[in-house]
Amino acid sequence: MVVSNFSDWYNNIMKEAELVDLRYGVKGFIVIRPWAMFILKKMYQIYEEELHNVGHMPVHFPAVIPESYLKKEEEHVAGFEGEVFWISKAGFNELEERLALRPTSETAMYPMYALWTQGKKDLPIKLYQSGTVWRYETKATKPLMRGREFLWIEAHCAFATKEGAENQVMEDVETTNKVISSSFGIPFLFFRRPDWDKFAGADYTCAADTLMPDGRVLQIATTHLLGQNFSKPFEVKFMDDDGEEKYVWQTSYGPGMNRILAALISIFGDEKGLVIPWHLSPVQAVIVPIFKEESKESIMAYSREVEKLLKNKGIRVMLDKSDETPGFKFNKWEQKGVPIRIEIGKREEENRSVTVVERYDRSKRTLPLDTIGEIEKVANEMFEKMKEDAKKRLEESIVEANTLEDMENAVKEGKIARVPFCSLSLEGKECYEKIKEKVKAEVRGRLLSKKEEARGNCIVCGKEAGEVAYVARQY
Amino acid sequence: MVVSNFSDWYNNIMKEAELVDLRYGVKGFIVIRPWAMFILKKMYQIYEEELHNVGHMPVHFPAVIPESYLKKEEEHVAGFEGEVFWISKAGFNELEERLALRPTSETAMYPMYALWTQGKKDLPIKLYQSGTVWRYETKATKPLMRGREFLWIEAHCAFATKEGAENQVMEDVETTNKVISSSFGIPFLFFRRPDWDKFAGADYTCAADTLMPDGRVLQIATTHLLGQNFSKPFEVKFMDDDGEEKYVWQTSYGPGMNRILAALISIFGDEKGLVIPWHLSPVQAVIVPIFKEESKESIMAYSREVEKLLKNKGIRVMLDKSDETPGFKFNKWEQKGVPIRIEIGKREEENRSVTVVERYDRSKRTLPLDTIGEIEKVANEMFEKMKEDAKKRLEESIVEANTLEDMENAVKEGKIARVPFCSLSLEGKECYEKIKEKVKAEVRGRLLSKKEEARGNCIVCGKEAGEVAYVARQY
Repeated sequence: MVVSNFSDWYNNIMKEAELVDLRYGVKGFIVIRPWAMFILKKMYQIYEEELHNVGHMPVHFPAVIPESYLKKEEEHVAGFEGEVFWISKAGFNELEERLALRPTSETAMYPMYALWTQGKKDLPIKLYQSGTVWRYETKATKPLMRGREFLWIEAHCAFATKEGAENQVMEDVETTNKVISSSFGIPFLFFRRPDWDKFAGADYTCAADTLMPDGRVLQIATTHLLGQNFSKPFEVKFMDDDGEEKYVWQTSYGPGMNRILAALISIFGDEKGLVIPWHLSPVQAVIVPIFKEESKESIMAYSREVEKLLKNKGIRVMLDKSDETPGFKFNKWEQKGVPIRIEIGKREEENRSVTVVERYDRSKRTLPLDTIGEIEKVANEMFEKMKEDAKKRLEESIVEANTLEDMENAVKEGKIARVPFCSLSLEGKECYEKIKEKVKAEVRGRLLSKKEEARGNCIVCGKEAGEVAYVARQY
Repeated sequence: MVVSNFSDWYNNIMKEAELVDLRYGVKGFIVIRPWAMFILKKMYQIYEEELHNVGHMPVHFPAVIPESYLKKEEEHVAGFEGEVFWISKAGFNELEERLALRPTSETAMYPMYALWTQGKKDLPIKLYQSGTVWRYETKATKPLMRGREFLWIEAHCAFATKEGAENQVMEDVETTNKVISSSFGIPFLFFRRPDWDKFAGADYTCAADTLMPDGRVLQIATTHLLGQNFSKPFEVKFMDDDGEEKYVWQTSYGPGMNRILAALISIFGDEKGLVIPWHLSPVQAVIVPIFKEESKESIMAYSREVEKLLKNKGIRVMLDKSDETPGFKFNKWEQKGVPIRIEIGKREEENRSVTVVERYDRSKRTLPLDTIGEIEKVANEMFEKMKEDAKKRLEESIVEANTLEDMENAVKEGKIARVPFCSLSLEGKECYEKIKEKVKAEVRGRLLSKKEEARGNCIVCGKEAGEVAYVARQY
């Protein structure tokens, strides 16, 4: 999308397209309205189907975690305890043990994994939970991007070997590609994060960043190799074939569903409003009848016929019967992002045809009624175009920078800088902190998709570069 | 189902079929395991589709409710305040206002309804939320039937007129019929509850009771006419055509998803385990190969061919390749309730056929490979039989009782007693309390499905009967 002020555009579309409501009575908590929630439900459905395809099964763990569970893994609790909502009273009673509202479910799930894992035959475990987590976020909140309650999927796996867990991380990357990129059309870069930026308790973290229209990156999914860091304190172990008791190797994977929606809205939107992909849209085709008083009856009858025809094809169609003008209706449904508009006037009625307008590039065509099913093909081609354009924009936003100054300029222009960097292990943290301070940007890590050979010297310390790192401002 | 001790059977199947795990570290909270959660997800999907069909849209409201919101409607808070989990701390800070973990969402949603409702054009509102609610239950918990966290759908509607709201209650009844009865196969009686047993804050409550195998009824869905009881304190009002500002009329509807699952398990289960309807089962058909060592290779190859064939037809099929004996496998998958078993031995391989065994009545038939798609038809017919039988059992469990003694005997035998009763308004409460004390049974209300003419005298007080009431023990 190209708009002059993305932040204003974003805040405005949240309200105008009735996506969320910020007026709920608890700071950092928002209401997700029907138009957005329908899209989210479709996204969940597609994501869950793909998880089933690769062997995951759904599970439900409680939303509350006993304090003693939460505190079992030291690094983990240190990372989260400042963000936990605590329940200490129920009805009129004080609870014996405080309960945390889950900020993430590792410590809820793994005590059970310990009970479920006896022998090798119980492995691998591949389970996911769709739902909400709560974090007492202290940074400024932004609707769907950062809040104190968010919707996600978390998939937690356990394996007999390290190799099994590492393969799972790569499968998670592949699942992310299939769903977020291919099915939702949102392009991203998948990074191995620097060691100073990994999940609390993980060996390492990989994360998908998409690029928002203002040039800041948004993390939309993460997958962590937890190694044996949790299996040891939680005693998730199994009897191996060699007769030895061993700790399992674990991973956790989490696509952030409301962030993915935020990205979808921002990447495809334009100055007129949203553009929603066909398969995700609450209304796929809107029919706008255009008539004078004398032609109203026959045009409305024909419009209803078209509506019925499309409904019978399983298309989510809506005939706008309101008293507004056609122009008002055009604007309204363009703002809401309905991918296909069907205009029906005198000419269409007489020819038994419809005029089909694509939301993305507003191209028009006439279809005879008996081939109206083709709008699905039109919409799918439109979506392929949207995907391609978005991917190209992301690719073009990556620029080489070999000096701190070049990097700063690139980042200020909303680009992602590709830079030589000393090290992404803790040794490099000092250089990162200088970038953070001077440029207000983040080192996002190195690309997972291809091995890039480091050349030249670290743009901060001047030592021989060990990595090709990507630097950008973040949400 | 006919088993000698239902309670033992139920607790046992929860564990043996790996449906839930009760060992989570917080009292009253359980883990729902993959086999059960998959079924629940399918149920949610079917329910939500039907809600969309009748014009509902999904919405997401926060899980936390400010204390001031919760306390706005007096009867409501009186009904729930003993059951609320309270959050008073976040991170290291005390919150300014305590937050309730939602026990139900009326008080979360209606302040927003007030903002969304300006004129008549904003009505009706028909929104639902799928998710979890939390209640500090003090009665004995029972897995999936009663706990401190439960999964449900809550649909909240607002109308300009009382008639609109009353029609909604009847639409909710119809939706319950379509989904729980027709699609899930669970029979129930829909009652108008007595006035002493209505939802806290409602004008009246209607509720669906199903009959568990031990003769106790289980409430699986409710719909409440809230009238203007909430719209007044929450100021949900609109400008009517006559220029007057009016309060909306409201309803709330809630099918309890884990209770529906409990009913499905109990009503269709038998001494061998579960029987899951085809469209809800995680595995629809399990292939059990039967071979001697010399025929293993060819039979496994043929089994994989059959597996692939069914997979391509979109059937959730599973080839059991484990080293267990066929007998062990038969028992395992019967216990898990897989509706169709496909046995493949030497004869089947040679004839390019399969032997198909129905889980419900264990009837067998042979199908040639080229008509194997018929197993779907077989499974659907099996489901129709299951439905019919269950419905018949419910109908047969209703017995007439014209004296307190007859009623007591009926209830003790696990029947639902149909009795003449003085009144279901508060006047009748004293008679109800005598039944409760003497017979340990509940007055469930009067049938919604047909108007029944009261005859004779109230079985408790002997006054002229004003109602035909149904009495049963409850979960």
